[in-house]
Amino acid sequence: MSSNAQPSPVLPRAGVLGGGQLGRMLSLAGYPLGIRLRHIGGPDDTSAGEVAEEVKAGYDDRETLARFANGLNVVTYESENIPLETAEFLAQRVSLQPPIAALAASQDRLHEKRFFESVGVQTAPYAQVDSIENLNRALARIGTPAILKTRRFGYDGKGQAVIRDEAHAADALHQLGGTNLILEGFVRFERELSIIAVRSTNGETRFYPLVENHHEAGILRLSIAPAPELTPVLQQQGETIARRVLEQLDYAGVLAIELFQAGDQLLANEMAPRVHNSGHWTIEGATVSQFENHLRAILGLPLGETDAIGYSAMVNVIGTIPALAAVLAFPEAHLHLYGKQPRANRKLGHITVRGDDPVRVRATAEKLREIVRT
Amino acid sequence: MSSNAQPSPVLPRAGVLGGGQLGRMLSLAGYPLGIRLRHIGGPDDTSAGEVAEEVKAGYDDRETLARFANGLNVVTYESENIPLETAEFLAQRVSLQPPIAALAASQDRLHEKRFFESVGVQTAPYAQVDSIENLNRALARIGTPAILKTRRFGYDGKGQAVIRDEAHAADALHQLGGTNLILEGFVRFERELSIIAVRSTNGETRFYPLVENHHEAGILRLSIAPAPELTPVLQQQGETIARRVLEQLDYAGVLAIELFQAGDQLLANEMAPRVHNSGHWTIEGATVSQFENHLRAILGLPLGETDAIGYSAMVNVIGTIPALAAVLAFPEAHLHLYGKQPRANRKLGHITVRGDDPVRVRATAEKLREIVRT
Repeated sequence: MSSNAQPSPVLPRAGVLGGGQLGRMLSLAGYPLGIRLRHIGGPDDTSAGEVAEEVKAGYDDRETLARFANGLNVVTYESENIPLETAEFLAQRVSLQPPIAALAASQDRLHEKRFFESVGVQTAPYAQVDSIENLNRALARIGTPAILKTRRFGYDGKGQAVIRDEAHAADALHQLGGTNLILEGFVRFERELSIIAVRSTNGETRFYPLVENHHEAGILRLSIAPAPELTPVLQQQGETIARRVLEQLDYAGVLAIELFQAGDQLLANEMAPRVHNSGHWTIEGATVSQFENHLRAILGLPLGETDAIGYSAMVNVIGTIPALAAVLAFPEAHLHLYGKQPRANRKLGHITVRGDDPVRVRATAEKLREIVRT
Repeated sequence: MSSNAQPSPVLPRAGVLGGGQLGRMLSLAGYPLGIRLRHIGGPDDTSAGEVAEEVKAGYDDRETLARFANGLNVVTYESENIPLETAEFLAQRVSLQPPIAALAASQDRLHEKRFFESVGVQTAPYAQVDSIENLNRALARIGTPAILKTRRFGYDGKGQAVIRDEAHAADALHQLGGTNLILEGFVRFERELSIIAVRSTNGETRFYPLVENHHEAGILRLSIAPAPELTPVLQQQGETIARRVLEQLDYAGVLAIELFQAGDQLLANEMAPRVHNSGHWTIEGATVSQFENHLRAILGLPLGETDAIGYSAMVNVIGTIPALAAVLAFPEAHLHLYGKQPRANRKLGHITVRGDDPVRVRATAEKLREIVRT
């Protein structure tokens, strides 16, 4: 060290359970702040390990988990499907954020619905289903059509069956394993929205504007931010829902809640205690992204501004990777690839278009959607 | 590979000579596009190697250089002080961009001035100096005060001596080694500006708005973008200068030209054939950053939009790293640390403030400058 060397501040280190695209974008957001991330990834994960340190290990490998946690200021996760035992094991060694209660509430659809109810957040009607008897009782109460879902590990439309009439109840029950299910009533909603909220360990809370989401075959294809015709009343309603969840859980980190808009009413569909696909637009479209704010929040640093800069639309890249030049030919397109091998129905990247004219942004996004489809 | 696997497109790979902060930010810009970078770094470089693949090697280590170039689509550099022999050796193996002519013109102040002259770009008066005799002749022609500079390896105000009167000429000459020098006349300029331009291998060219730069002790401290009171005429003049340089050199990549504004006239001070400190604001302040556009340009991909989004100010972090929380307490501040050990006068990071109100942006930047000073 030379004689004019200055003391080097101790910069935080964070761990992420998961080596997918969410972890990758967290790591990329951490570097500019001097926050380095370390990931635990599964055998097929290639996204985070390409840009940051990754340990390949199963969530039951306690020796590796203990070594992983060593020297970290905080551990977070990119999926709600982390075994609770893993989370508890780590939480004894290092701060784990968002808290285990958030993980527990969100990894089981039944617990999640009950949790929403407990904080006064409205949801679709639902019932626990473990047999044909209580399925039939539930159908009698909730009516058809209704959706039977597995309570755990459902994502991107998997683990679901629509029951259009009671005659097909037994089939649906059988198809989903017969037990540990939930029946949800159909909500006649106009559109799907989501709110991305962030709360720091010290209680500071910020909200991004509500986003409108478009799914196809159960997978998010397009998010528009802010949601078209977003009124202050609607935004306020979304923030109230998120705030109740955040405060009840003494939450730290980014939280996403998927919402149905029915008339001027918002119903909570599900929540994700993590950064969320419908918040990817914030990288270019908001002052500070959901990824950077998640890191700030779990480390107790001041949160960044969450306001939208103009209008954004995000298109998911699914199944195949388009030619770089075809996407970049739109000079306002921002391509984000995840370093994953193409495979049918796999999220491989996303493209964000940002601008000052919402009509033009939307039109460009639709053109990109065509390119991504082919 | 599963049966529904799709072909994976071949994504480009690029090499960077240099492992400092410019290389680091190029690598971070490459990941979202699926462009992976590999660096050659010196023993003290810690910036790029923290975020990307880095090979430690000297520029005369041809065996390592050849291995480094293997499998790359293009090689670029983050400093104009790359030995020309190294560049030529690599250019025989792989596309090297910006072209060697740009490197040659910019690493020697005398060649640079002559090059500017050759394309009709105005500069301060100058003269080659290799002895007390031609220094005295030059002073008689150019007058005092004047600045004696080493022709090569000067940066951040190093390798310069101001000659206020002819009596001190011999001292200055001696101090700078007596030979391979250039004398430059003092320009009575109102302010220092710079233009960041980008040209692709296929000739597509874009320009960022001119930036106003403030130096202290020879080191850039603050850039304001777009430059206050930037008129279309001034912008056009800057673009004309840059375009002449780009076209004469059949240039690909980002080019920075430092300018003096004297009245309504722009004089070229020096050029850098690379991404540039006065363009760091483009990460948040322009639609597509100089780093991403440099990669697009050298790979022949379509260029991204270079327009400013509102107003930006960039403050350099020099010598010591401030507390994270002190910087992030400004919710519109974007901190970029470079993974370097603090040392007096060393560039350790930068902070960009972006917003819609130029007065507020500037005021916040001044507050951050105070924090960074302490």
